[in-house]
Amino acid sequence: MKKAAIITVGSELLEGLILNRNAQFLCQELKNLGYRVMKISTIGDHLEDIVDEVKSLFPKVHLLILTGGLGPTRDDLTREAVAKALNRKLFLDQGLKAKIEEKVKKYHSEIPSNIERQAFVIEGAKVIDNPVGSAPGQLLEENGKRVILLPGPPRELIPMFESLKDILKTPHAFHQVTLKYYSIPEAFLEDLLREILYSQDKVEVATMADHVEGVRLRLTTSAEHRKFLDELVEKILEKTGEYLYGINDEKMEEVVVRLLKESGKTLAVAESCTGGMLSSLIVNVPGASNVFVGGVVAYSNDLKKNILGVKEDTLKKYGAVSEQCVREMAEGLKSLTGADICIAISGIAGPTGGIPTKPVGTVLIDLFEQDHVTMRYNFSGDRNTIRTRSAMIALENLRKHLKESGRL
Amino acid sequence: MKKAAIITVGSELLEGLILNRNAQFLCQELKNLGYRVMKISTIGDHLEDIVDEVKSLFPKVHLLILTGGLGPTRDDLTREAVAKALNRKLFLDQGLKAKIEEKVKKYHSEIPSNIERQAFVIEGAKVIDNPVGSAPGQLLEENGKRVILLPGPPRELIPMFESLKDILKTPHAFHQVTLKYYSIPEAFLEDLLREILYSQDKVEVATMADHVEGVRLRLTTSAEHRKFLDELVEKILEKTGEYLYGINDEKMEEVVVRLLKESGKTLAVAESCTGGMLSSLIVNVPGASNVFVGGVVAYSNDLKKNILGVKEDTLKKYGAVSEQCVREMAEGLKSLTGADICIAISGIAGPTGGIPTKPVGTVLIDLFEQDHVTMRYNFSGDRNTIRTRSAMIALENLRKHLKESGRL
Repeated sequence: MKKAAIITVGSELLEGLILNRNAQFLCQELKNLGYRVMKISTIGDHLEDIVDEVKSLFPKVHLLILTGGLGPTRDDLTREAVAKALNRKLFLDQGLKAKIEEKVKKYHSEIPSNIERQAFVIEGAKVIDNPVGSAPGQLLEENGKRVILLPGPPRELIPMFESLKDILKTPHAFHQVTLKYYSIPEAFLEDLLREILYSQDKVEVATMADHVEGVRLRLTTSAEHRKFLDELVEKILEKTGEYLYGINDEKMEEVVVRLLKESGKTLAVAESCTGGMLSSLIVNVPGASNVFVGGVVAYSNDLKKNILGVKEDTLKKYGAVSEQCVREMAEGLKSLTGADICIAISGIAGPTGGIPTKPVGTVLIDLFEQDHVTMRYNFSGDRNTIRTRSAMIALENLRKHLKESGRL
Repeated sequence: MKKAAIITVGSELLEGLILNRNAQFLCQELKNLGYRVMKISTIGDHLEDIVDEVKSLFPKVHLLILTGGLGPTRDDLTREAVAKALNRKLFLDQGLKAKIEEKVKKYHSEIPSNIERQAFVIEGAKVIDNPVGSAPGQLLEENGKRVILLPGPPRELIPMFESLKDILKTPHAFHQVTLKYYSIPEAFLEDLLREILYSQDKVEVATMADHVEGVRLRLTTSAEHRKFLDELVEKILEKTGEYLYGINDEKMEEVVVRLLKESGKTLAVAESCTGGMLSSLIVNVPGASNVFVGGVVAYSNDLKKNILGVKEDTLKKYGAVSEQCVREMAEGLKSLTGADICIAISGIAGPTGGIPTKPVGTVLIDLFEQDHVTMRYNFSGDRNTIRTRSAMIALENLRKHLKESGRL
């Protein structure tokens, strides 16, 4: 397997001004292309530091990627440093200079005098076009090994790296599938799959869990075992398919919008503790307007009564965080909107407001189509976590409901 | 100024499974404590790699922090590696072992046999208590220099690092103030402040900008210039105070909820393209229920008409994305909720739905108290960006409105 290393250059990283998302992106991509990343170094904008790091890492790897330090200012030293470390000359590419100036003209009335710096190319390097910004990248080869220089801003780096994937691909390129579950605990999933997953050694298994994406099972294998992986996925889905909500990049809200479209049904939601978060997740899916009509953020009890028609008696007798209340919210929403499916959420997100019988984290969710399906949860975590989990589990309930009604 | 370096250990980082948030957190904190971070290295769970990195970095710095690799499994090698690199012994601390076992008992029915590994302490090291997890940290001193070992999970690392701040503080500890603006462009802000900011060299100035937090001006100085910084902030606020929404960690939605409380006014919102995002931001502030009553996610035109009372005629003549429509939405919301201030948003978040006179990114926002203040925006970006900017600028408009009415 080929080895790689990454040098991210920039004092803003060492001062904690920005989060190093480039390193994570490159590591994921390199892994899939068949590289093992040995090391990530983050260093400041100092010529000798960059030179030393290149000299120390390049002999050990097949691919060295440097990010950052390609801007037009005197701080931007990556070009000079790599040239120096590899004993190559740096020369001004007049054609490139003209191209960069043309690009800059589109956005600025004046061309900064130092923009010329970005047109310096390392001897023998191939220039990598930057479709977004003014800083071009560079690709060098030496003894069958490669050094790549990319700009720091992710919106420039990502498309530039994508354009290089074909030439970087190795025979060890990986094949990867991520299976996503929401309402099944990680340990239970592992129990169900223990035999299938750990009786083989061709596919590497990683599990990750959080309260936004749920439990994810990431399966990685080399190209030669691709067929084996596909068969393994089939076996896994036989055992756990009913719990699965998505594969690879598909998000829960995208799945739900897709299932709603397939079923031809419309949705409305009434939210108290989530306060619009569930609606907002759904609306962020392009094309949601075909299936989502909207809803009511019934945060105060007055709104629950006046807009949704929850009875004064219900609030007095059972409180706003009760089965009875969410059912009346959902029914009121149905009369108001005429949507096929109505979801209502009410809960205590904290940090205050909990009582012994209904501690912080108590959340009631009703899903109402012909009948009510009412669920009670006790979530832990801070206010934002409780609200996020409530919105996500409401989506998961809706997904299961649509799957089941689809089957009938 | 003292020098520091960070080694983050973990193959999960090199495989891109997780984002290196620890590095950013530590860099920010170390800067404020008076250290200059020279380098961050990320390496895998391999003994010799860790040993080499410690040997290479420790001679160059006053403080070396290692994160990760303190778990109970055979992969967790940071203890062994640091002991080896510094030629110190590693011994089993029986008292620590008993403590760790007691902790683990609380959460697990069985004590894993390998938990003992976490009780190995490097000769001469001080044990750092872990208030959250089972892995203790370690602090070593050598020739007035320090090495610190901390566990990888941020929820364990952060409180443990906080507990060390007093002993790590240097005479060069920094003082820092962040000033936050929303509706003023970065370049305009810099123009206003050029003279004040760049006629001095005691305070370091950094600007950052994004569409969630707006434009932030970060001012950093050493302890000796603290008074100068305070005076500088005063001068800056004289010129730009009217644009400022918050200082340091305060978020826009927190400011708005605070101002609403101070003014004794209630708020309701009617959202179309933002689809609940504005409500959700407000509801995430603890105590929002005192001032926020809720609202309507009027995503479909039917809901705009049936719940908010927008006239059929208005929709036909001007469309849903029009001054007229958001005004009627706000008026309808006021009759429905009785809230003092009503905000209505309607726009085209894309990717489709734009027309030549109203391209994607066109957003109308109405703020209605006694009178209407209606604003039209043309945002660029993807669907989520346009929605986020709409929600944030609505909050900013409300903030300015509350400030102004407070002044009358």
